[in-house]
Amino acid sequence: MIVDTSKKILIVGLGLLGGSYARVLKRFGFHISAITKEQSSIDYALEEKIIDEGSTELDEQIIGEADLVIFALYPHVFVEWIEENQALLKSGALITDVTGVKGSIVYKIQDMLRPDVEFVAAHPMAGREVSGVENSTATMFVGANYIVTPTEKNTPEAVQTCMELGRLLGFSNVTTLTPEEHDEMIGFLSQLTHCIAITLMTCNDKENMEKFTGDSFRDLTRIARINDLMWSELFVANKSALLDQMDLFIKKFNELKTMLETEDIDGMRSMMRHSTERRALFDKK
Amino acid sequence: MIVDTSKKILIVGLGLLGGSYARVLKRFGFHISAITKEQSSIDYALEEKIIDEGSTELDEQIIGEADLVIFALYPHVFVEWIEENQALLKSGALITDVTGVKGSIVYKIQDMLRPDVEFVAAHPMAGREVSGVENSTATMFVGANYIVTPTEKNTPEAVQTCMELGRLLGFSNVTTLTPEEHDEMIGFLSQLTHCIAITLMTCNDKENMEKFTGDSFRDLTRIARINDLMWSELFVANKSALLDQMDLFIKKFNELKTMLETEDIDGMRSMMRHSTERRALFDKK
Repeated sequence: MIVDTSKKILIVGLGLLGGSYARVLKRFGFHISAITKEQSSIDYALEEKIIDEGSTELDEQIIGEADLVIFALYPHVFVEWIEENQALLKSGALITDVTGVKGSIVYKIQDMLRPDVEFVAAHPMAGREVSGVENSTATMFVGANYIVTPTEKNTPEAVQTCMELGRLLGFSNVTTLTPEEHDEMIGFLSQLTHCIAITLMTCNDKENMEKFTGDSFRDLTRIARINDLMWSELFVANKSALLDQMDLFIKKFNELKTMLETEDIDGMRSMMRHSTERRALFDKK
Repeated sequence: MIVDTSKKILIVGLGLLGGSYARVLKRFGFHISAITKEQSSIDYALEEKIIDEGSTELDEQIIGEADLVIFALYPHVFVEWIEENQALLKSGALITDVTGVKGSIVYKIQDMLRPDVEFVAAHPMAGREVSGVENSTATMFVGANYIVTPTEKNTPEAVQTCMELGRLLGFSNVTTLTPEEHDEMIGFLSQLTHCIAITLMTCNDKENMEKFTGDSFRDLTRIARINDLMWSELFVANKSALLDQMDLFIKKFNELKTMLETEDIDGMRSMMRHSTERRALFDKK
């Protein structure tokens, strides 16, 4: 057998991501269980046959039988869960996560974790503007990046398993970064862009602007519709790396402003050519 | 007759916009002529039957016969053209433009213009990431805004004609603003967004970022591929209004940065809710 479907997989937090994990993994024939807050999520997932069993309680049997536990929770909820409930995990279990920040989570979890349980952190870089297991899909990860952030506490075997999980889920690119590299990258590509979008959307409240809006403004503010609870937590959890990226942005923006003030056409054109050239790298391949 | 197709229309500058104007207006049966730099543009337009005649020279007959002249030139080229060649225009001609900034152009042209020729300024808010008459289309203006910026020097009749032109071209929204309102709006919705995109694209040159790029970053930098010659000129031509918008953006961005530094979760969430709420206004209707 290529895939060892005798392994039992538990998903803690059955939302958009957790639900999509369940949906894909169930197709391979794994036994999938779920623990989540809302009974309606469990009911939905059972009806859709994307989980085999589920509970809104800390079901000791479900937790104690899981070989692989995937935590799809808010960062602080994940940390609290481990603090309070790690005794329930099976000896030898592998745990992983979906958390969008790494440095402030990975070491904290690994430092407090029982020695007979291993945590390999991962970040599935996929999301949608909707939430909940009801919006989960089996195709959400196609074309997306799955990043594993191993530390020196991890075994090569567990890291390998976690990368295999990413491939099973259908991610197009499965790679590793250090937690610090990950946080810098995410600070720049994802968090800074959200900071910019919400700033642009709130910096000028003049009326009737929307009547004249074109595609450029819509593109830059699509992500200005934002889950305030989740993103404020993710920003703080990546504070240092994000502040660095914000500083880089402000510095360059002020350079452009000075060039405009002094009507330095050559300087602006040079920056625009640099921008045009560099943007080509980021086209979808 | 609803449309007076005995009127002769001259387009000066047969690029993407000028060519699209010709393409739509020809369908109504107008006599369309063009004056432009490259013979190849004239040849293409004649072959496509979107103009009746054209020249790369200042053809006195073509210019002297035109009832309506549409200038689709860079701002400074437009100003120079009027300075040097306005004597060639027909008495009673109406002239209009496609310039993306207004305050720095409209008064300058109107102040120097012969009293028997009227200039009504307009901004067709449409564009593509390609240029040239070869890329012109007859459907480019569907769904877009056409803004006329009359001044006290304009007659109601000429303003009306200019608005009719916008409707003939297929623009979905044809409205008027003062040149100052226009420049503030364009400074915010279009120029500030381009400033942000090129800054984001050039503020961090770390290698391999493109490997992890998702849709958010791509959305915010789509317009970072930019015509440096045109946009640097447009920025300077709208310097004061654009600097105001850049200041508003920096002020709000720094507020967000301070909230992150002090871990002011409530403040960040409030800004994000404001952003989410305001973004709903800007959805495509």
